[in-house]
Amino acid sequence: MRHIHVIGIGTGNPEHLTIQGIRALNATDAVFALDKGEAKAGLVGLRRRICDLYIEERPYRFIEAADPERDRRPADYGVAVEDWHAARAALYESLIAEHLDEGERGAFLVWGDPSLYDSTLRILERVLARGRVTFTHDVIPGITSVQALAAAHRIPLHPIGEPVRITPARRLPRDGLGAETGATVVMLDGDPRFEGLDPGLTIYWGAYLGTPDELLLVGRLGEVAEEIRRVRAEARARHGWIMDTYLLLKPAP
Amino acid sequence: MRHIHVIGIGTGNPEHLTIQGIRALNATDAVFALDKGEAKAGLVGLRRRICDLYIEERPYRFIEAADPERDRRPADYGVAVEDWHAARAALYESLIAEHLDEGERGAFLVWGDPSLYDSTLRILERVLARGRVTFTHDVIPGITSVQALAAAHRIPLHPIGEPVRITPARRLPRDGLGAETGATVVMLDGDPRFEGLDPGLTIYWGAYLGTPDELLLVGRLGEVAEEIRRVRAEARARHGWIMDTYLLLKPAP
Repeated sequence: MRHIHVIGIGTGNPEHLTIQGIRALNATDAVFALDKGEAKAGLVGLRRRICDLYIEERPYRFIEAADPERDRRPADYGVAVEDWHAARAALYESLIAEHLDEGERGAFLVWGDPSLYDSTLRILERVLARGRVTFTHDVIPGITSVQALAAAHRIPLHPIGEPVRITPARRLPRDGLGAETGATVVMLDGDPRFEGLDPGLTIYWGAYLGTPDELLLVGRLGEVAEEIRRVRAEARARHGWIMDTYLLLKPAP
Repeated sequence: MRHIHVIGIGTGNPEHLTIQGIRALNATDAVFALDKGEAKAGLVGLRRRICDLYIEERPYRFIEAADPERDRRPADYGVAVEDWHAARAALYESLIAEHLDEGERGAFLVWGDPSLYDSTLRILERVLARGRVTFTHDVIPGITSVQALAAAHRIPLHPIGEPVRITPARRLPRDGLGAETGATVVMLDGDPRFEGLDPGLTIYWGAYLGTPDELLLVGRLGEVAEEIRRVRAEARARHGWIMDTYLLLKPAP
């Protein structure tokens, strides 16, 4: 039987790797690196670098492939994701069939943690459901950008004893954050407009978290929103890509 | 100037340590291990074991102390936490003053990640505000029980593209989970009653996550709630303590 490790590798700092992740890498015959097809030049080499840094015990194959293109402005978000997942399942199935022999171990290296806004686990479930290749798999957690953001700012994510919400920007309530929690982490915001948000919120913003290019800004939203948008646009132009996230905290009552 | 690393060490598996955490440990002169005063016998030795396993490069001092007692059934939660934090700040200040010389590096080892339901960062801010000892500090993220839970069940924390809420049990809405998110992670539940929750929710439950004693249960809440309460009570009696967490997922529409 084939076995696949799904390994969270953190947010860009090779030292985010856990001992558990390194041990799994060193038991691996084939590492699958799926490129999301974006010009994230700074990220393309990192998975290879992680393998170079940490795999000592055995030879391994490094398999690069381009993920299918995703419609980023779909008319129907659900249908677009469904189509994209189906195309990726077909690709992953053929990669596994072609590059991983029976009895061998493979690894998928996932940015952040496989449980948060990453679809590798859903795709592997689809591959299994298709029934053409079989494998067992396990998951090795990794440091998320949420944690890297809090660590860089040296803050807890939430007021004492309160809930915290983690949300993609497209699901951020536009009519205010509601009464339920004073803490909201926003991810995957392609163009932060901060529309409809209370300017009295405190924002902790970070980009390229954990890397030498890390950028941090903090302040009342009404006072720093424009600076964040300016710094973000400049950095994106300079690097050709950006990955950022932010925490919104309500002022203490 | 003194420097303090606040290091997330994961949930009980020494292999949750990151390379960043290990590197910080190896730059440390004094490791502070604060015992929360509970009979968490299985946990008491783990911080020492982590130091034994990973610190190679220099001698270090291992400083154990008992955290002040906390009122677990306070009449006023906010006042009780405030009193407890004040007592801990006084303790941490004296530990730092007594055991860490100017120019040395200390480390606080934190279960999970310092950003999530841990007060070490708030206590250190208080110590700085008291002004009697000075230090710089940084934060090194670690694997949380939320991530260990998802990894053990090999699941994403949320339906595709949806928010996820992380909440202490005492802030779990008793009148249903609301419309905002189909995914809620519950932490710090001393006695899960699942009162008022939709029995059609899927629950992914885990205890002692990442350790050899790990327990996992999954199912419709209405079908597995009693089993979870039974397994949990038995395990707690056997070990003398329990740490568990669970994810509630709404059925797909």
